[in-house]
Amino acid sequence: MNDAQYFWLLVVPETSATELHDLDPALADHMWRVVTALGAQLKTHTDAIKINTAAIGNMVPQLHIHIVARHRDDPDWPRPIWGANPPLALSSPAKTARLSAVQSWLGN
Amino acid sequence: MNDAQYFWLLVVPETSATELHDLDPALADHMWRVVTALGAQLKTHTDAIKINTAAIGNMVPQLHIHIVARHRDDPDWPRPIWGANPPLALSSPAKTARLSAVQSWLGN
Repeated sequence: MNDAQYFWLLVVPETSATELHDLDPALADHMWRVVTALGAQLKTHTDAIKINTAAIGNMVPQLHIHIVARHRDDPDWPRPIWGANPPLALSSPAKTARLSAVQSWLGN
Repeated sequence: MNDAQYFWLLVVPETSATELHDLDPALADHMWRVVTALGAQLKTHTDAIKINTAAIGNMVPQLHIHIVARHRDDPDWPRPIWGANPPLALSSPAKTARLSAVQSWLGN
């Protein structure tokens, strides 16, 4: 997500299912491995106090999993971030750095 | 959860891990099967438009997964429910009915 307030990832599986319980079991298994691996990397990389993981999908039906690194000094701690603050666009260097980090995690 | 505004379940795995990515893989696999099975039952039972599933844990460190049935006419739709409205206690018959439903789903 293009939001400098949090390091916030979305995992979007290739599926027409909109609910976790309708996912093909093999895809669900793969997706959870990706989601938890990204959460682990994100926690280490950002020294987060907590990773928030959620499938909400009330606004956008395409199934997507939020993975968000939370910190005591982020704008909403300890409240959830959804619907809280308007996004604050990343600078170009920050965006490049985040993309590079995520690509290296996926490469692992 | 004792909240008449939503049919809202918490799954609490027996673990000292506080992050999904730190769960023992066999426990994680079992937990996701329980969470998705409960989500499927909850969606059918309540005729929900969407199931919201989340591991947040900013307030309570014990790992827990929220599973919430959402409806277009619930007090927060389409916003997330966390931190939104104060809970509205269930009546005793409603609580009994919910417990009975959940116990039957777990029995299946």
